[in-house]
Amino acid sequence: MNDSIRLFELAGADDEIRFSPYCWRTRLALAHKGLNFKTIAWRFTEKEAIAASGQDKVPVLVIGERWLHDSWDIAVHLEDHFPQGPSLFGCSQGRATARFVSQWTNDVLQPAIARIIAPDMPAILHEKDRAYFRTTREIRFGCSLETLASERQKALTALHQILTPMRAVLGKQSFLAGDAPAYVDHCVFGAFQWANIINSLPLIEPDDPMFAWSERMLDAYGGIARSAKRCHA
Amino acid sequence: MNDSIRLFELAGADDEIRFSPYCWRTRLALAHKGLNFKTIAWRFTEKEAIAASGQDKVPVLVIGERWLHDSWDIAVHLEDHFPQGPSLFGCSQGRATARFVSQWTNDVLQPAIARIIAPDMPAILHEKDRAYFRTTREIRFGCSLETLASERQKALTALHQILTPMRAVLGKQSFLAGDAPAYVDHCVFGAFQWANIINSLPLIEPDDPMFAWSERMLDAYGGIARSAKRCHA
Repeated sequence: MNDSIRLFELAGADDEIRFSPYCWRTRLALAHKGLNFKTIAWRFTEKEAIAASGQDKVPVLVIGERWLHDSWDIAVHLEDHFPQGPSLFGCSQGRATARFVSQWTNDVLQPAIARIIAPDMPAILHEKDRAYFRTTREIRFGCSLETLASERQKALTALHQILTPMRAVLGKQSFLAGDAPAYVDHCVFGAFQWANIINSLPLIEPDDPMFAWSERMLDAYGGIARSAKRCHA
Repeated sequence: MNDSIRLFELAGADDEIRFSPYCWRTRLALAHKGLNFKTIAWRFTEKEAIAASGQDKVPVLVIGERWLHDSWDIAVHLEDHFPQGPSLFGCSQGRATARFVSQWTNDVLQPAIARIIAPDMPAILHEKDRAYFRTTREIRFGCSLETLASERQKALTALHQILTPMRAVLGKQSFLAGDAPAYVDHCVFGAFQWANIINSLPLIEPDDPMFAWSERMLDAYGGIARSAKRCHA
């Protein structure tokens, strides 16, 4: 099938544990567009498997013979090449503004969540990925994973502070994109789904307006996020 | 004229110094819609002049007999009641996502800029507003304006950090709303125009992608922002 769609997703030691926040953006965008796709478990150190994409990170999406990478570029490609499905952005202004939400999630939200859940990562990774993960993350955070673990409460407080504007907005509308979820929700929820899959500490409490939104995102698209396999606590 | 539009704007001791970032959002939104309006200089302590709005903050927009307040609610009103002008949001997804940008500007960007420029404010305010400004801001920041002034370099570094995702986006597209400015640009630029009018230290350097965007915003809508009166340095 020349128009088959395959998504390379980061996996844990268990093939079915798919935790990458960037891969979740793409998976949800594909579901939003109503496209059928097959996922392929991939590990950090399997660089050669996705070499045809011209770089070494996932998500990598293969549509027929075409290799795509970078979650934002993939979303734009899906929007432009599959106009028959529901829109990911709504309009050009929606698309331009979604780019800020995507970038804010990359630069602000995900690093804040990473400080909380990174210490739980080695235990779920494939043995061959553990050294890669520890080395790259300890350089990124400037401290050991054990130090990060000891600072979790502080990191959780910082995350709650970062979420202030998002909490206010989700107290007033059902989704970031309005009445129904769209790509901005995929970006932000991808970060929370990462923590859900890892089964790390709860990032938001039930009395937070973001909790109800997260529940709606877990149920969206036939419950694709809720039915995903999670690590044991 | 029953459909006349009047905008109450915060002013300095000099009637023509209009510095409020929230009022700039409304002024730019009115210009975007191509509406004619008259502005009225207002000071923090002139609560009775806008009492008909049911609260005590500007912007207050009076359209005929109708009193509106809150910059977000005003933008939504303009979009819904003046559909003939260019759209402020583009579509419902654009509107919903713009609410996050507006809220992020309120909660994150403006407080960061305030820490840098608040010490310059008393000198430009009307004498009757100075005590109000100092008291409310020193409570908000938890320190004296003089302490804030001594921490400016640190606050400038913090601001540059906060701008990371916005800088990345504006390195790739002309405006936050895409090819042309819209309400998301009005929100974010309003905060920078506050510093422009106060003539405080430069917040962004010429080699920053945000600088070129700021220049485009100064020129937008017939140069309404560039031609505004500024304080002497």
